[in-house]
Amino acid sequence: MKFISYLLANNPSYGILTTNGIIDLKSLMGDRYPDLKSLISCPAGLAHVKTLNQTPATVDPRYVTYLPVIPNPNKIICAGMNYADKRKEFDAQDQAVTLFVRFADTQVGHLSPVLKPSITEEFDYEGELAIIIGKPCFKVSKQEAPNYIAGYSCYMDGSVRDWQHTWFTAGKNWPKTGALGPCLTTQDEIDDFDALSIRTYLNKQMVQNDVLGNMVHKVEDIVSYISTFTQLSPGDVILTGSPGGVGKKRTPPLFMKPGDVIEVEIEKIGHLINTIVAE
Amino acid sequence: MKFISYLLANNPSYGILTTNGIIDLKSLMGDRYPDLKSLISCPAGLAHVKTLNQTPATVDPRYVTYLPVIPNPNKIICAGMNYADKRKEFDAQDQAVTLFVRFADTQVGHLSPVLKPSITEEFDYEGELAIIIGKPCFKVSKQEAPNYIAGYSCYMDGSVRDWQHTWFTAGKNWPKTGALGPCLTTQDEIDDFDALSIRTYLNKQMVQNDVLGNMVHKVEDIVSYISTFTQLSPGDVILTGSPGGVGKKRTPPLFMKPGDVIEVEIEKIGHLINTIVAE
Repeated sequence: MKFISYLLANNPSYGILTTNGIIDLKSLMGDRYPDLKSLISCPAGLAHVKTLNQTPATVDPRYVTYLPVIPNPNKIICAGMNYADKRKEFDAQDQAVTLFVRFADTQVGHLSPVLKPSITEEFDYEGELAIIIGKPCFKVSKQEAPNYIAGYSCYMDGSVRDWQHTWFTAGKNWPKTGALGPCLTTQDEIDDFDALSIRTYLNKQMVQNDVLGNMVHKVEDIVSYISTFTQLSPGDVILTGSPGGVGKKRTPPLFMKPGDVIEVEIEKIGHLINTIVAE
Repeated sequence: MKFISYLLANNPSYGILTTNGIIDLKSLMGDRYPDLKSLISCPAGLAHVKTLNQTPATVDPRYVTYLPVIPNPNKIICAGMNYADKRKEFDAQDQAVTLFVRFADTQVGHLSPVLKPSITEEFDYEGELAIIIGKPCFKVSKQEAPNYIAGYSCYMDGSVRDWQHTWFTAGKNWPKTGALGPCLTTQDEIDDFDALSIRTYLNKQMVQNDVLGNMVHKVEDIVSYISTFTQLSPGDVILTGSPGGVGKKRTPPLFMKPGDVIEVEIEKIGHLINTIVAE
């Protein structure tokens, strides 16, 4: 299944995205599940949703405003330098998982404007796979890690390169510089994870192109590593790094400016589209 | 005034710490101010509190469990490498403010156990000044920054050195490895900020000793810099780095182990005491 979170006539809701439209779950699931985070945290809720899969879609996706697929994550933890090409570009030497944090207010949803901070001319794109945690998770092994994942989404990890440093914080936390969506795709839709392509397009030109199997630290490694030191909760978002081809390391450099369209497409998982707007 | 947050018979509350005991504000302020964060965000609430300053103290501090003075901060942003001695110890070269993030579940209150992760033998102390934000704050100048500060507290920024790296995240986010408190001391209690001593004691032995005036990036610089890229809100916590003398850089190194008592004392601001306990 593919879940989305959205505003419908200014009211927050969530549902299942199907080829016929959206099955609005908020109206079907009652007060016990006010948002997608509460639903994915509850096995009984998810089991009930499976029985609703044939319910007629009543909402037209053209009339909703997409929210970040998890609008209210407790923790957003980002792995960086995690594809061989990207590591070469940045001369990354450390063998441990590079990790930084984004705040929730840095995120927008699919089709929403991403803000280019006025202070920078180095606003760079990074297309990434996002992991969405489904169950409380602490000190789990690599083998157990997949059991704690609700699914995957696409992420555009907009980066202010001239504020980035080796600690990342200031480069990655400008308001509305990241995008998460359009949907949470559950793991059962994916049987050939390593072969899935991950591609980023700037104004329809392909600027990043790799496959998920080329991650240095695999999804289960990253979840296990992070869960060693911090408790993860349903709805937490973990980014897995972007392939090579970022704008900072091109000759000449290629940065995002107002009016640009940035897309992150991961096979079977989603196609995230955003327009860059001046802050 | 000195505000504290605490549990009284397992119920969360907050109040004014006086030499005669605690004036319990939660019972006096009504439902509009459920916690200290909601109080400091509201000028009318703070003005009302001033009229309660002479109310008899009804709670004995010996019978409360201190919470982190802000139990539920939205953002905890930490400046590192911010005293000349510490920068020398770590050979810090970058001139920008070093910044990392802690999650709220890494914090405990005054007198509560701090947990030494079982995985490390390099659990280090860092005594720091914490800034507590009082008003929504975005893109403020250095000159304006003090108007957005509710007050100050002490912080023990427990650090797992062998997981720290140049991005800090994994070294600084183990559960209950930091302590914030005992109190929020309002700015009007302080007239000689630069001269105030900041000292850390491990088992009564002084291990860090400096004055707040020796910060490289001053309080107003740090708040202004952070507010350039991220919106700050009432109750947000900003750490300002620790002086030289950390355990990692001693010969031989000096790390915290279960049973140790760690204290951070900042003149006029507070005296934070915690015992180290095995995870």
